[in-house]
Amino acid sequence: MTTVSEYLFHRLESLGVQHIFGVPGDYVLDLMDVLNQTPINLICNCNELNAGYAADAYARVRGLGAVCVTYGVGGFSLVNAVVGAYAERVPLVVISGAPNSSVRKGNLLLHHTTGDYNLQLSIMEKVTVASVILTNASQAANQIDQTLAACLHYKRPVYIEIPLDLVHQSCTLPEIQPPSSFKFTNQETLPAALEEAVEEAVNLLEKAQRPVILAGVEFNRFHLQNQLLKLLETTGYPLATTMLGKSCISEMHPQFIGNYVGALSRDDVRQRIETADCVLCLGAIMSDMNLGGYTANLDERKLINANSEKVKIKHHFYQPVYLGDFIDGLIANLQKKDAELLEIMPAFHLLSQSFMPQPEAKLTNRRFYERINHFLEDGFIIIADTGDAIVSTMDLLMPQETDFIGQAFYLSIGYSIPACLGAAMAAPQRRLMIFVGDGAFQMTAQELSTIIRHKLNPIIFLINNDGYTIERVIQDGPYNDIQPWKYHQIPQIFGESWSCEVWTEGELEAALVKAQANTNCVSFIEIHLDRFDCSQGLMRLGKAVSHRS
Amino acid sequence: MTTVSEYLFHRLESLGVQHIFGVPGDYVLDLMDVLNQTPINLICNCNELNAGYAADAYARVRGLGAVCVTYGVGGFSLVNAVVGAYAERVPLVVISGAPNSSVRKGNLLLHHTTGDYNLQLSIMEKVTVASVILTNASQAANQIDQTLAACLHYKRPVYIEIPLDLVHQSCTLPEIQPPSSFKFTNQETLPAALEEAVEEAVNLLEKAQRPVILAGVEFNRFHLQNQLLKLLETTGYPLATTMLGKSCISEMHPQFIGNYVGALSRDDVRQRIETADCVLCLGAIMSDMNLGGYTANLDERKLINANSEKVKIKHHFYQPVYLGDFIDGLIANLQKKDAELLEIMPAFHLLSQSFMPQPEAKLTNRRFYERINHFLEDGFIIIADTGDAIVSTMDLLMPQETDFIGQAFYLSIGYSIPACLGAAMAAPQRRLMIFVGDGAFQMTAQELSTIIRHKLNPIIFLINNDGYTIERVIQDGPYNDIQPWKYHQIPQIFGESWSCEVWTEGELEAALVKAQANTNCVSFIEIHLDRFDCSQGLMRLGKAVSHRS
Repeated sequence: MTTVSEYLFHRLESLGVQHIFGVPGDYVLDLMDVLNQTPINLICNCNELNAGYAADAYARVRGLGAVCVTYGVGGFSLVNAVVGAYAERVPLVVISGAPNSSVRKGNLLLHHTTGDYNLQLSIMEKVTVASVILTNASQAANQIDQTLAACLHYKRPVYIEIPLDLVHQSCTLPEIQPPSSFKFTNQETLPAALEEAVEEAVNLLEKAQRPVILAGVEFNRFHLQNQLLKLLETTGYPLATTMLGKSCISEMHPQFIGNYVGALSRDDVRQRIETADCVLCLGAIMSDMNLGGYTANLDERKLINANSEKVKIKHHFYQPVYLGDFIDGLIANLQKKDAELLEIMPAFHLLSQSFMPQPEAKLTNRRFYERINHFLEDGFIIIADTGDAIVSTMDLLMPQETDFIGQAFYLSIGYSIPACLGAAMAAPQRRLMIFVGDGAFQMTAQELSTIIRHKLNPIIFLINNDGYTIERVIQDGPYNDIQPWKYHQIPQIFGESWSCEVWTEGELEAALVKAQANTNCVSFIEIHLDRFDCSQGLMRLGKAVSHRS
Repeated sequence: MTTVSEYLFHRLESLGVQHIFGVPGDYVLDLMDVLNQTPINLICNCNELNAGYAADAYARVRGLGAVCVTYGVGGFSLVNAVVGAYAERVPLVVISGAPNSSVRKGNLLLHHTTGDYNLQLSIMEKVTVASVILTNASQAANQIDQTLAACLHYKRPVYIEIPLDLVHQSCTLPEIQPPSSFKFTNQETLPAALEEAVEEAVNLLEKAQRPVILAGVEFNRFHLQNQLLKLLETTGYPLATTMLGKSCISEMHPQFIGNYVGALSRDDVRQRIETADCVLCLGAIMSDMNLGGYTANLDERKLINANSEKVKIKHHFYQPVYLGDFIDGLIANLQKKDAELLEIMPAFHLLSQSFMPQPEAKLTNRRFYERINHFLEDGFIIIADTGDAIVSTMDLLMPQETDFIGQAFYLSIGYSIPACLGAAMAAPQRRLMIFVGDGAFQMTAQELSTIIRHKLNPIIFLINNDGYTIERVIQDGPYNDIQPWKYHQIPQIFGESWSCEVWTEGELEAALVKAQANTNCVSFIEIHLDRFDCSQGLMRLGKAVSHRS
């Protein structure tokens, strides 16, 4: 016999979910008791928003993540994390307990509710691609499978609500076990549309003298990285990535030139992209911030823009055409161009000069990230929080198998610390490095305790520049000042940890040595920078945003 | 010339709002710049959920509260606080910045959004009584007035979204300045229905031998406390209050017998209420937890149930009948009953025995709250967080002019620390005392830093009983364990503060003396209790909830 809740957890497990994040509450305790009997680990968070962020990062690393909360107070606290996952195409399964079906039919006012028992569903419906309240055990397994399929197909959040009385009901198993291979596919392609799209694109690209590829986040979401490598090999074209697409391939690749984010970009990257006679834009979300606050200058007449569902050339669309199929078509039909004509300035040249610390010198933003660029190792996971941290990390070069995680489009401040927990659980053998500003840290600081609780060993750089520096650059006012905490003292309050303060380049060297060797617990390094000492990219971004209207 | 944003803040100020809580973000900076030019103080929080809780508590104390956040990430992080205010009838004004109207008409993907620019409105519409996006400066003033009127009429949240380009537009002033006297009224009464309702109720009550009054939260919301006192004087009836209605009059009143919360109540209170031959229930929200997890035993045939909008007797309704009018009708027509027959056991008798500390004795839950009962002074504001804290404080007797604040119905964990900030701003001359469990504290701990930043002087009791004790009683499992923090060390990390740990009754005495004298900064007292040492009420509640299905 399999119960409804067992079936749900069994399916999640078969899709690669080994950890579920959540916060207990009386409507969800039965579900959590069942969960604790499965091979999946329940990771309890300090609050629900943090649980949502953790599950989001877990999904970015593993391809699927889940969060489990109580009804009402739990579900409603989670909304911002779900919207973020929706905006950035993250396959996140939201599981909520709920009152007994019998109670919902009555007219009783239950705690944690407003009395409208469909309120949570009706809100979640707006921010997910599929939402369901399980009300009938005989249909539950099919409903679970359909909902999970939508999550994996669209790479966007879904919502499953399980009333208390359904949890232990035995459930009718589907006749055909759903494949777990639908994991990374989005296979709706109209062959004739594909053929035509490939033909038009190939014509444009072959005619172009200096084409470039601009790659976005969908390479991570649909696991198309190998196809991108093959496309690079076949064509010889230079490649840039969007901010959200950062790290979709190794940034040491000889054809990789940098991140293109409009006015935020390094000048040579911007110049190369904006003077290309054909831009092959693949799998990117075309948002303002992802493109440098609308400062990106991509001439639509030179643009081929393909994402997971369609191809747009100039002003017409081919749909449905799946990104993977389109790339395969390009690989089969494009010729290799002469490297000389393509004018490729590989990004790895930035590392050609070695870094010489000046021990007594006060640390600056520029020198800090230059130093980190030489500290990064293959296989790291880098997480940057919203603010100057995410802008500064744009200039970090991601070596082989290094993943970059950040909410580069939705930009919710406070994402990084809970995301660190999620990513560390998703990839226990990998080392994590987190960059978080003081303002962002204050939003979700308590989740550091869960990282410490589970003896994870990320290296966390708390960039203390005394307030919301990114906003000071856009528009300064007293609201950008925050209470100055003694940040480096916080880890010891939560449990076993190592932390220090850094003011000079010499202190940074000592801290890096110590952090690298400290694999037993968290390393928390408070970096002191002047309040207006920020990245050049941020200065440019600030100007771009303040003049936008 | 008055601009749209100036008009909004001017109206809020004239309705008694002197502080607005919020978190900056680029869509709301212009609005905040305007706010900083008004007499209203902008209080910046660590995150938006906390800002919402703070504004909610501010509204409970002053009759209206407001929170101001950025679009998307800000608004969506606030949802749980808004639902809580909706559930517990709190007049909370949610103000959100928004992108320029021109951008919304285009097809651009802006950061902090999903691309659907009505998403935030469409969610807020579900959890408020009035929602509006200001799109036209000539209509804005009227829209603002109508929205604020709905907030004050229904005592429930409203939502006002202001696109960036509207902020500085000059606005047409309404011809008639709206009165600020609509502040506490809800005046829709059908005279004939009122007359009939009063007549039927008076007949029932005069016939009854042992009637009682059960009063709820609407006395606070509609500021009807004086009418309640007059009703008590006129009739001589005994009075109990619901959990959410606690402190609607001084609990030292000779007719006050205690809080009635079903099986949670003291036995004598429960017995008196449930054996009454007529229960006059006034202004109460009839929810499960407010009535002790459905363990309340109120015979509907003996029940007269009046709230702000209607009167229900047995199984028929009189509507619209405003609570204040109904009480006036009762006062005019009821006779005083003989005190002997009414069998009143005043709650203040509980204080008749003085408290003798046993200095070496390990502190227990029971002894701690007994001691606090003798420590409370006139004029305090008491805030209890969800969990054992709110259940335990039920037995605290609120002296003259003492207010009790807690989410007794919606029960969102983590409410108390942000609420402390809001209530302290609302009543700067009053002393606050907070009771918060360790699990609840972890949810929103960072807001303690804002309390410290503004040099507020609440006395905070952190009840450390090693996890979610209330859930251990309902259903125990590993999910009820939390990471043990060194709680008493946290305040010093945030700024100037005084804190200590308490294990024994003697240490508690010393701490109370110190806290009472310390009026310059926060006093943070970590109370160590055994993990299963909880209130008797909680034991009874846990049983009631776990058997509910």
